[in-house]
Amino acid sequence: MSPFISEIVGTFILMVLGNGVNANVSLNKTYGNNSGWIVIALGWGLAVFVAVYIAGATSGAHINPAVTLGLAMTGKFPWATVPQYILAQMIGAFLGAGATYIQYRPHFSATDNPDTKLGLFCTGPAIPKTLDNLASEIIGTFVLVFGVLFLVSGDGLGSLSALPVALLVVSIGLSLGGTTGYAINPARDLGPRIFHAVAPIRGKRDSNWRYAWIPIAGPMIGAALAAIVYSVL
Amino acid sequence: MSPFISEIVGTFILMVLGNGVNANVSLNKTYGNNSGWIVIALGWGLAVFVAVYIAGATSGAHINPAVTLGLAMTGKFPWATVPQYILAQMIGAFLGAGATYIQYRPHFSATDNPDTKLGLFCTGPAIPKTLDNLASEIIGTFVLVFGVLFLVSGDGLGSLSALPVALLVVSIGLSLGGTTGYAINPARDLGPRIFHAVAPIRGKRDSNWRYAWIPIAGPMIGAALAAIVYSVL
Amino acid sequence: MSPFISEIVGTFILMVLGNGVNANVSLNKTYGNNSGWIVIALGWGLAVFVAVYIAGATSGAHINPAVTLGLAMTGKFPWATVPQYILAQMIGAFLGAGATYIQYRPHFSATDNPDTKLGLFCTGPAIPKTLDNLASEIIGTFVLVFGVLFLVSGDGLGSLSALPVALLVVSIGLSLGGTTGYAINPARDLGPRIFHAVAPIRGKRDSNWRYAWIPIAGPMIGAALAAIVYSVL
Amino acid sequence: MSPFISEIVGTFILMVLGNGVNANVSLNKTYGNNSGWIVIALGWGLAVFVAVYIAGATSGAHINPAVTLGLAMTGKFPWATVPQYILAQMIGAFLGAGATYIQYRPHFSATDNPDTKLGLFCTGPAIPKTLDNLASEIIGTFVLVFGVLFLVSGDGLGSLSALPVALLVVSIGLSLGGTTGYAINPARDLGPRIFHAVAPIRGKRDSNWRYAWIPIAGPMIGAALAAIVYSVL
Repeated sequence: MSPFISEIVGTFILMVLGNGVNANVSLNKTYGNNSGWIVIALGWGLAVFVAVYIAGATSGAHINPAVTLGLAMTGKFPWATVPQYILAQMIGAFLGAGATYIQYRPHFSATDNPDTKLGLFCTGPAIPKTLDNLASEIIGTFVLVFGVLFLVSGDGLGSLSALPVALLVVSIGLSLGGTTGYAINPARDLGPRIFHAVAPIRGKRDSNWRYAWIPIAGPMIGAALAAIVYSVL
Repeated sequence: MSPFISEIVGTFILMVLGNGVNANVSLNKTYGNNSGWIVIALGWGLAVFVAVYIAGATSGAHINPAVTLGLAMTGKFPWATVPQYILAQMIGAFLGAGATYIQYRPHFSATDNPDTKLGLFCTGPAIPKTLDNLASEIIGTFVLVFGVLFLVSGDGLGSLSALPVALLVVSIGLSLGGTTGYAINPARDLGPRIFHAVAPIRGKRDSNWRYAWIPIAGPMIGAALAAIVYSVL
Repeated sequence: MSPFISEIVGTFILMVLGNGVNANVSLNKTYGNNSGWIVIALGWGLAVFVAVYIAGATSGAHINPAVTLGLAMTGKFPWATVPQYILAQMIGAFLGAGATYIQYRPHFSATDNPDTKLGLFCTGPAIPKTLDNLASEIIGTFVLVFGVLFLVSGDGLGSLSALPVALLVVSIGLSLGGTTGYAINPARDLGPRIFHAVAPIRGKRDSNWRYAWIPIAGPMIGAALAAIVYSVL
Repeated sequence: MSPFISEIVGTFILMVLGNGVNANVSLNKTYGNNSGWIVIALGWGLAVFVAVYIAGATSGAHINPAVTLGLAMTGKFPWATVPQYILAQMIGAFLGAGATYIQYRPHFSATDNPDTKLGLFCTGPAIPKTLDNLASEIIGTFVLVFGVLFLVSGDGLGSLSALPVALLVVSIGLSLGGTTGYAINPARDLGPRIFHAVAPIRGKRDSNWRYAWIPIAGPMIGAALAAIVYSVL
């Protein structure tokens, strides 16, 4: 598996599980309907766990352009490979959103609220306020990328070595996700938003493109700040 | 312990704990009544953890015909031993369902709803739609078997080496289980269904045999697809 | 620290944390009031984690007469030391219950229901039925001791080596605890019951001695069965 | 990174995530609003996990004056460095509280209750009773520092070696946090309380300085007792 394919596969797994837990909690008549924030935060964290242990050996499992940026800025990843990784992450995220849609299709039909159908794919602010929402994504991604830069892999842990980054993501979800839904990953937000825009989902609303730049810019700024602070320290 | 016995033991443990958490959440007057999807998903994942660390050393702890199929298709398990493993898994699942029944007998008596009594043993769709339900089991099992094929065991982790596969199952439960209850394992569904059919459970309904082929076919197709994609990559 | 002191310390820690989580969930006006079965099951499992990593190096951290019995029956622990261990476990459990009482004293005063005040110390059946309750404790402890006998410790894991047994206890709680509250440990039940009987708790009821033999006999029978099945296999 | 900076960074991370999960659960209109004690306890535990693996290599990641005291009293840390560590912890906690405020600013505006705005920064008793509240903080911190003193680090675990202390904190939260909100750390309480006092938070109440000595004195007494008992054993 080439690094390019590996990033596609990893981000695909991330998104089918991540969009999947959103669907399970928010769509009507699912078994996990309305099961709360603990399910969301644990679901996304374990999505990271599975994606990272699958793709880690072949591509390092960035599965996030902000992580790729942070690693490049700190000299841990070649700049020349950054565009290729981001493209792969976008493809994987788009495909993962599609798989979630197939998985939960009857529940899309059973759900009338168009905000719910959008909200399980991509993030939106609990209280819309441009600068605050941007700050929130910056802070969340700062903690993510700063935390990633300090990760020390163990010896001979096998797949268990993916656990620390997964717990980091659970922590960010529980603690910092309450404002904008913690995109903290441009591909995680934009890929599924494009899927929502192009897929023939019945009763869907617009894809809220006005907000779409925030979960792109915020994570990239947060990652850059984390890389700078890390380098200074 | 022979591999045959080991698969029986592992699947027995899987099912007494897995059917057990369903019983705890769904039967009347239990201490865990109505305690939500996080309990279900964590309960099944930890059931896998216990089963796998007990049976792992002697049989590899497949405890799932779909996993056995996926390993055989990728050359990691001899085809000749497949039928023996599947038979053992069916026996273990049937016996585990029986132990759950003994464990929760007073609560079966305290529960009138016959759907609840069936639903804790075997899976059923939240929204019955044949092709969608089949697709859902295919996707869930694809992620399971694909994830299993990428597992790398650590060195000297002891029983902790069973944790990654357990977290994989928690993840699938949280994210993809909301549609059909994630059988993702033909023995896990069919063994308890047969128990439900033959056991003298008061006030029981029919065992919903019309649906029974989906949690068999879906997982086997999903496992085969995972093995093919894994081999291609 | 001698093994005797170590078992006292380990069981003390188990019970201050275990009775503590019960108090947090069930007493009035606590921050964790009514926070559900996930809190109970995780709280007890992590109580085991802390107790085991503290006491493990010096006494093996049985912290449970049923575990001591199971290890002795399978030749992994000298019979001559069994009485000393059980005495230590009883002392530790009694003292741990006392510490919980000090910790939550204002909340005892704020709680009128005498069943709640008893129920956080020792177990009782959700549906009283002698034989079924006994069977339930037998099955739960069978899984515990059977699981303990199969535990394989890793190399150089440090305190993390206490995690598998903790996850085993979380699993039993989630899956099999819904009937009798999973004593699965005679000291865990009897020690706090004695504390409840002798402590000057205002507005307390009797200590339900009629039931007290079940969480002693059940776990010991379950442990013996697990040891026998383990030896046969 | 010097140990001084490392303690600032570690405690900053602890508090932005710890105060963050409080904000997510308690402020109006957050996605995690009212999501329960499991979110609080897991959120704080994972905040410890992230802080400890980031700061562990450079300063040992005490991130808590009570831990620093306990280690000094048992000869595991030089007394001369204690004041410097405590100062760093106070700075980090103050800054972390500030980052939480930035993160959740729109939700502060959307929340009228001034007790909520105070309560997410620093602790307060569920039932105010001076001696009992003090005892509660003593017991909670005793378990924390006693548990920390028994931690054995594994070999080559990398970032995963921060997991045991995180689970210890989750356990204390679930089991002993229901009374006073488990400060168990003077910096964790005082730093954010000072931030609350000086920051221009609209509609805030006083910073409850009458109570502020308890989450300082209690943890220091508890840590000292743990160090003494540890030394005796």
